[in-house]
Amino acid sequence: MEIGYLGPAGSFSHMAAYLYSQNSRLVPLKTFTDIIQGVEEKEIDEGILPIENSTEGAVTQVMDSLMKTRISTIRGEVILKIEHCILSDASSVEEIRHIYSHHQAIQQCRDFFNINYPHISLHSCDSSSSACMVVKEMGNQYGAIANTYAAKIHKLKILKCGIQDNNFNQTRFIIIGGRKTIVTGNDKTSIVFSFHNDYPGSLYLVLKAFADRGINLTRIESRPAKTEMGKYVFYIDFIGHKDNEMVMKVFEDISIYVNYFKVLGSYPIGITYE
Amino acid sequence: MEIGYLGPAGSFSHMAAYLYSQNSRLVPLKTFTDIIQGVEEKEIDEGILPIENSTEGAVTQVMDSLMKTRISTIRGEVILKIEHCILSDASSVEEIRHIYSHHQAIQQCRDFFNINYPHISLHSCDSSSSACMVVKEMGNQYGAIANTYAAKIHKLKILKCGIQDNNFNQTRFIIIGGRKTIVTGNDKTSIVFSFHNDYPGSLYLVLKAFADRGINLTRIESRPAKTEMGKYVFYIDFIGHKDNEMVMKVFEDISIYVNYFKVLGSYPIGITYE
Repeated sequence: MEIGYLGPAGSFSHMAAYLYSQNSRLVPLKTFTDIIQGVEEKEIDEGILPIENSTEGAVTQVMDSLMKTRISTIRGEVILKIEHCILSDASSVEEIRHIYSHHQAIQQCRDFFNINYPHISLHSCDSSSSACMVVKEMGNQYGAIANTYAAKIHKLKILKCGIQDNNFNQTRFIIIGGRKTIVTGNDKTSIVFSFHNDYPGSLYLVLKAFADRGINLTRIESRPAKTEMGKYVFYIDFIGHKDNEMVMKVFEDISIYVNYFKVLGSYPIGITYE
Repeated sequence: MEIGYLGPAGSFSHMAAYLYSQNSRLVPLKTFTDIIQGVEEKEIDEGILPIENSTEGAVTQVMDSLMKTRISTIRGEVILKIEHCILSDASSVEEIRHIYSHHQAIQQCRDFFNINYPHISLHSCDSSSSACMVVKEMGNQYGAIANTYAAKIHKLKILKCGIQDNNFNQTRFIIIGGRKTIVTGNDKTSIVFSFHNDYPGSLYLVLKAFADRGINLTRIESRPAKTEMGKYVFYIDFIGHKDNEMVMKVFEDISIYVNYFKVLGSYPIGITYE
């Protein structure tokens, strides 16, 4: 089986894809759109995409794209602790003068460097993986902020780990694919909808339907409908499979309130990798 | 009075600040943090900040910052139609070979150029205002994507307007300040809260309290609590002033469910500038 991820090799998406399926061929792709289109056009079997981060929130580009898929649904999830490390060919951090990484990774470790290594210059580049390539080429005065998996791939030493300023840093990834899932008894479902009477108070009626049937929600997000200010689309994740009787009843209950409704997928509750 | 905005002069924030108050001194500042700190430390009277865009959604950095203010509350809002124009010293678009603007603005007009002027190269720079400065210096083969207000400030011709690919493009700005607002009878209130029992289904009870008192909501957003995956903070905007009796009753109703609660401000419903 082939799983597409946001490359290059050594990215957090790559690490998540590997943890999700050790026996698949992992295919690095350039953009989220490439991954989704690859699945839609059956060029790859599955794709892995970051959907939310515990510090930064929703990955809005991915969420907006899920509304438009024709055949692919969410069929799994993986939660990955984001641990940033200093990778280098140097033997200690003291030798390093320049650090490279993706802009986000640098932001997430800025206080660490300001406090401990104020003399090191921080430089942004395309990704933490491409930072590793720069460091490999430039030598001992250079270091990258990246994960332990990238250290393996780019053959760099791990000098220090857990350098992120906020220790609670997790990213939830979803796996999309064309095949259907079965009920496992430990499932989650993701839906997206908007309202006839397009004011956010209508959300109360939908949440009531879930509460009345005793179904627990795990996430609620709103996104702009992109038509005018004050019109929204809502995303809900809840415990249960779309083929459960109680879930089917809730879908019936809420069908009178919504003018757009899509099941993004039902899938086994994911594992959190520390 | 002095109002801080995200500069340089000619930005959409500048335009919004001008529409909000023609008689104030408008102070360009470098970051959102500078604006908020300026108000908190009483160096400026008020600050204007983008809070949501009809295409891109919440301005999460601003939302997260509002939780941390001590003295400043929201005291006004302005909704601005984002209309991108081609500004240049050239007399027609046909003369232009290079277009400069902020990355976001270029993204929002990409299809327009691909279809109508595929030979023009598009270049990113710091802001649409700094793009105007580049264009002013470089001459007739150069153009900027910016607003009509920037044309005035940088003395450039407006060659074409409304070139954004999605015509429904509005940004809502809020005005923060240290002074209290009075009830006008046409007000809105913004609150933020999180729950004891930290699962999103608790939101149902809060929405019910508003529905039971007949108070209309205009916006619901969730943001990560930044502690672990699945813990959220909720933002709600609703019609009414915090000093209205019915609103005070709702606050009492929901006080038993929330473990964190902050009124971000009550303010007159804003004008939409087309």
